[in-house]
Amino acid sequence: METFTVPVGISNRHIHLSQDHIEALFGKGYTLTKMKDLSQPGQYACEETVSITGPKGTISGVRVLGPARKASQVELAGTDTFKVGLKPPVRDSGKIEGTPGIDVEGPKGRVHLDQGVIVAARHLHMTPEDAEKHSVKDGDHIQAIVPGPRGGIMGQVLVRISPDYALDLHVDTDEGNAFSLVNGQQIEVCKATE
Amino acid sequence: METFTVPVGISNRHIHLSQDHIEALFGKGYTLTKMKDLSQPGQYACEETVSITGPKGTISGVRVLGPARKASQVELAGTDTFKVGLKPPVRDSGKIEGTPGIDVEGPKGRVHLDQGVIVAARHLHMTPEDAEKHSVKDGDHIQAIVPGPRGGIMGQVLVRISPDYALDLHVDTDEGNAFSLVNGQQIEVCKATE
Repeated sequence: METFTVPVGISNRHIHLSQDHIEALFGKGYTLTKMKDLSQPGQYACEETVSITGPKGTISGVRVLGPARKASQVELAGTDTFKVGLKPPVRDSGKIEGTPGIDVEGPKGRVHLDQGVIVAARHLHMTPEDAEKHSVKDGDHIQAIVPGPRGGIMGQVLVRISPDYALDLHVDTDEGNAFSLVNGQQIEVCKATE
Repeated sequence: METFTVPVGISNRHIHLSQDHIEALFGKGYTLTKMKDLSQPGQYACEETVSITGPKGTISGVRVLGPARKASQVELAGTDTFKVGLKPPVRDSGKIEGTPGIDVEGPKGRVHLDQGVIVAARHLHMTPEDAEKHSVKDGDHIQAIVPGPRGGIMGQVLVRISPDYALDLHVDTDEGNAFSLVNGQQIEVCKATE
């Protein structure tokens, strides 16, 4: 079974916003302020944060990620979903049809998202060169092998390939904590045998 | 590879208290009020809750579990540890030597625990009869096989055997959410092959 090594990136809850929603929340003509670059080229964490409110509660300080997207999307860890009182499905980023909505509040206004709340499916970003080297295709599912006292195997890791990506295995904070992972840790992955 | 099926119990953060600490927090001569029985015979969730405060923050509404124990112990999910600002080790219940302490506040007073904060190691409670049937021994480590879109394998599940136990695989909320488990769900376990 061929394995290869990838770095882990642990995503905290965050929100992607459309330009319309950025202006509704932060003011007309507003553009996001980059705080720091993320592992994927062109993606960045912003200085801006918002509050999100569901049927059972509010989470404040939710980080906005840039740049603006076509549709707004909120990515929560399962732990967060209990706090706001929603049951979003585990989805690949961008696949928000039929997902729950939520109220979003910024310093200059609020918007109600009709849909867009997901728990992100774990996935591995790869360049076409990385993918060819390791004989995996876009849409494949692979396994990640985690060592240590909370080790195990994360199955169903979706492979996503683009020349715009950098090699990084994205999990959420629940997954990171369940497996005692730290950001940037190198772990082995392999193709699923079942 | 022989497998057998066990129910999953997902533990939210909670605290076990010594009788001294119960009285310090709730008043002299106080005894805990049972709210509901837990899966393990004689163990119960109490009406009482406390607040815990570490270097970075407070979590309120932390459920007290009864009955009173010899030593107080706080069991947090990894997610909680960031909120209070502690880095407790993954430990088996009761093994609190060298673990961080925390401030605990109840309606009638507060105490500082010098140690006792842990992230609980996942474990499988079994009776001697269950253990014999499935050929496992106290202290063995087994694997839990989780199906579904967030499936995988939880390694390093500690087997704990006592006539006072009932069959139940205990994980914390991070583990439950990482694997999309629900309380009471039946999953397969097997002996580790490595």
